[in-house]
Amino acid sequence: MNAPAQAAHLLPEIHQRAVPPALVEALKARFGERCSTALVVREQHGRDESVYSVPPPAAVVFAESTADVSDAIKLASEHNVPVIPFGVGSSLEGHLLAVQGGISIDVSRMNKILAINPEDLTVTVQPGVTRKQLNDEIKSTGLFFPIDPGADASIGGMSATRASGTNAVRYGTMRENVLALEVVTASGEVIRTGTRAKKSSAGYDLTRLMVGSEGTLGIMTEITLKLYPLPEAISAAICSFPSIEAAVRTTIQIIQMGIPIARVELIDANTVRMVNTYAKLTLREEPMLLMEFHGSPAGVKEQAETVQEIASEFGGNAFEWATTPEERTRLWTARHNAYFAAIQSKPGCRAISTDTCVPISRLADCLLDSVTEADASGIPYFLVGHVGDGNFHFGYLIDPELPQEREVAEALNHKLVHRALTLGGTCTGEHGVGLHKMDFLLTEAGSGAVDMMRTIKRALDPKNVMNPGKIFAL
Amino acid sequence: MNAPAQAAHLLPEIHQRAVPPALVEALKARFGERCSTALVVREQHGRDESVYSVPPPAAVVFAESTADVSDAIKLASEHNVPVIPFGVGSSLEGHLLAVQGGISIDVSRMNKILAINPEDLTVTVQPGVTRKQLNDEIKSTGLFFPIDPGADASIGGMSATRASGTNAVRYGTMRENVLALEVVTASGEVIRTGTRAKKSSAGYDLTRLMVGSEGTLGIMTEITLKLYPLPEAISAAICSFPSIEAAVRTTIQIIQMGIPIARVELIDANTVRMVNTYAKLTLREEPMLLMEFHGSPAGVKEQAETVQEIASEFGGNAFEWATTPEERTRLWTARHNAYFAAIQSKPGCRAISTDTCVPISRLADCLLDSVTEADASGIPYFLVGHVGDGNFHFGYLIDPELPQEREVAEALNHKLVHRALTLGGTCTGEHGVGLHKMDFLLTEAGSGAVDMMRTIKRALDPKNVMNPGKIFAL
Repeated sequence: MNAPAQAAHLLPEIHQRAVPPALVEALKARFGERCSTALVVREQHGRDESVYSVPPPAAVVFAESTADVSDAIKLASEHNVPVIPFGVGSSLEGHLLAVQGGISIDVSRMNKILAINPEDLTVTVQPGVTRKQLNDEIKSTGLFFPIDPGADASIGGMSATRASGTNAVRYGTMRENVLALEVVTASGEVIRTGTRAKKSSAGYDLTRLMVGSEGTLGIMTEITLKLYPLPEAISAAICSFPSIEAAVRTTIQIIQMGIPIARVELIDANTVRMVNTYAKLTLREEPMLLMEFHGSPAGVKEQAETVQEIASEFGGNAFEWATTPEERTRLWTARHNAYFAAIQSKPGCRAISTDTCVPISRLADCLLDSVTEADASGIPYFLVGHVGDGNFHFGYLIDPELPQEREVAEALNHKLVHRALTLGGTCTGEHGVGLHKMDFLLTEAGSGAVDMMRTIKRALDPKNVMNPGKIFAL
Repeated sequence: MNAPAQAAHLLPEIHQRAVPPALVEALKARFGERCSTALVVREQHGRDESVYSVPPPAAVVFAESTADVSDAIKLASEHNVPVIPFGVGSSLEGHLLAVQGGISIDVSRMNKILAINPEDLTVTVQPGVTRKQLNDEIKSTGLFFPIDPGADASIGGMSATRASGTNAVRYGTMRENVLALEVVTASGEVIRTGTRAKKSSAGYDLTRLMVGSEGTLGIMTEITLKLYPLPEAISAAICSFPSIEAAVRTTIQIIQMGIPIARVELIDANTVRMVNTYAKLTLREEPMLLMEFHGSPAGVKEQAETVQEIASEFGGNAFEWATTPEERTRLWTARHNAYFAAIQSKPGCRAISTDTCVPISRLADCLLDSVTEADASGIPYFLVGHVGDGNFHFGYLIDPELPQEREVAEALNHKLVHRALTLGGTCTGEHGVGLHKMDFLLTEAGSGAVDMMRTIKRALDPKNVMNPGKIFAL
């Protein structure tokens, strides 16, 4: 993990701002043992799942309340020191790295469910609650929260990166599912955005401005989410295909016909192999779609029949149905473990993840050429995709000690992103920009739009203390 | 309509900024006859469906292109003169009024569908396209755009106010259905926000910042929207109820059970009477729900059966089904005409509309007490509601010449808004803040959040030329 020299050439120029001892003393006075300067703690908070290595933060504050977050920000701001919010550390894009120095505010102890309103299908949580914890704690209500990035991420982190996952094709992303927030701003002030009403035209949509702002505009301390009734019937299936193209064309047709499929995930043959090894499964090692249908028993049956017809037109075969909750859990756990299965397939490797998302009609164009390029490169990779949304991920598995592998992987990534942008898509469907996609964002959005983001950032955080150096250079 | 003295006392203090003759000359030089200073044109652009009267704008520019909008903004900005975008003039909240003077930019001639991408379920339009025009022009694709405020509003205006309508309970609002924008900023620069990808985590969500910003941050010149496949089966029904409460409790249960109803609209007995008179219908003059179900034939049947069971538990009877497209159109036209039917029921009146939206479990609490209050006031009113969203509208029908009627109506409105806020709701579900709800917004969002909006506005529009004096005082 200690390869800063090598990482630095791929990072924007780093200016480490000084963290004066007076700040650390003030934090220790305020937070006692909840402010740690131990190297092991700082290092744990100074990395994420990205490939970058930079010096860790100077201190870590373990916040337990909104007041803690506010006080920590106020103290840091007085000293012009950056503040980086930390949930579980599952970012893929370098969001958590102290590229300009500073302190980490760990919100993982703010992990209470504050209010469940089953009669309104809403829940209010603290930011350190993880998605699995949330679903466990609301189980008795008959409701669930559908957004599921691969990791058991924190709701705060998921909101900050506008995350999604396998259910987004039907239930939307964090963009659609965060109703309201409590946010501590760059000045330490506590504001509320939104209400529990389902819709509102009450002024600027600060909720959605904060969602996806990657900690650069404030730290979320309460998050109100939409919930959904557990479907009366759920049915999941695996279908194998003779080629990735056949699986993709099946998906395109499912979406274009407006079938309200709840999940439709692509896994390529290679990745099925990795998952089989990792999770001791015996899935057919061919490109496959994992699908799930939600609705009434009759509705689910109807959807499944239509999808089977479409799949068989494209040579899809070997439909295997998972009807019990246990079978379904096993299936989706396998999918969610694809990333870890891949990482373990090449010991010591790191994954450079792509995250393009294109209009559904362009999915085959975007994906198939990129598969050819990846195969030709010789770099091992995994390929999984929320293909119903036009979103997929290559994970190029590189040896972090070999700069040339990273260069090859980044070159593949560049080609893929530029292809996606040409096709009317985005460089990131769900991971966020962080450090890794700043150049791509500029290409995608244009300097005018990025300047507008920068202007908003400067206005709301004039000292540039909130997670600086992410999304855009500043 | 000429009662400025009387209107002024309910408006925030107005500072009419000077429009120098040099600006008008420059606009005439650039736009020729497309810049009008005729009183009748200015007056038409200086009012909307709100109760306010203020002096009209000094000139109206009829824009036909993005370059026209950009040039008009640049010229106005050079002279520090406000710019107010105008679509069809159907705002209910004073959005279009030149409270600080200035010029109106009429985008109604920018009414082209720029790109239909049926295979991706998207369409890109100019801001002057109206919702009915859009649905007419895409009819052959088998797709439709569901958002339907009462008026045949422009897509630009609907985006600017974060509008919704009867289909929002299933399809969401403009918040969920605008994918991307081209915007001319306060400096006249043209930027793009978003792409045609279904989801994205690419930086700040400028699209949603613009949606609902009421023309205060820029003028939208291209709007990319989501479309939906026309449902295979549609079925609509009217059901009469012994009381408003019975209708409301039926709605709450429908939503809490997760039935994917496409429309569920409340009309009170009074309003049914007005609609019958206006549209020569013979609907039962009792509180009623108008409902619509979208899906497969089996799915629609299933939904309808469940809803009928729920309704009958609450005494709902006389289910009348509209199965042909003609019957359905007649039904929904009646609903959409409720506003105009009510206005005609009291010649010369103006409507003061409420727009609260509360969590669904609070709907009965919010609505029923307000009905009692309205009945006791003696002011005639209509009552319609997108009750599936927890959103409803009283329209208090007042004589604009009688200040005491307005005061009584505004007092009712105040009570209702404060009740909604106490119940976790919002002062405006879909109409926007405009002039009318600035105080309510402050109560709802708090001064911290409104200050954040103001800070963003100041940063993006330092000369305060974009529709100033709306949403918040500035």
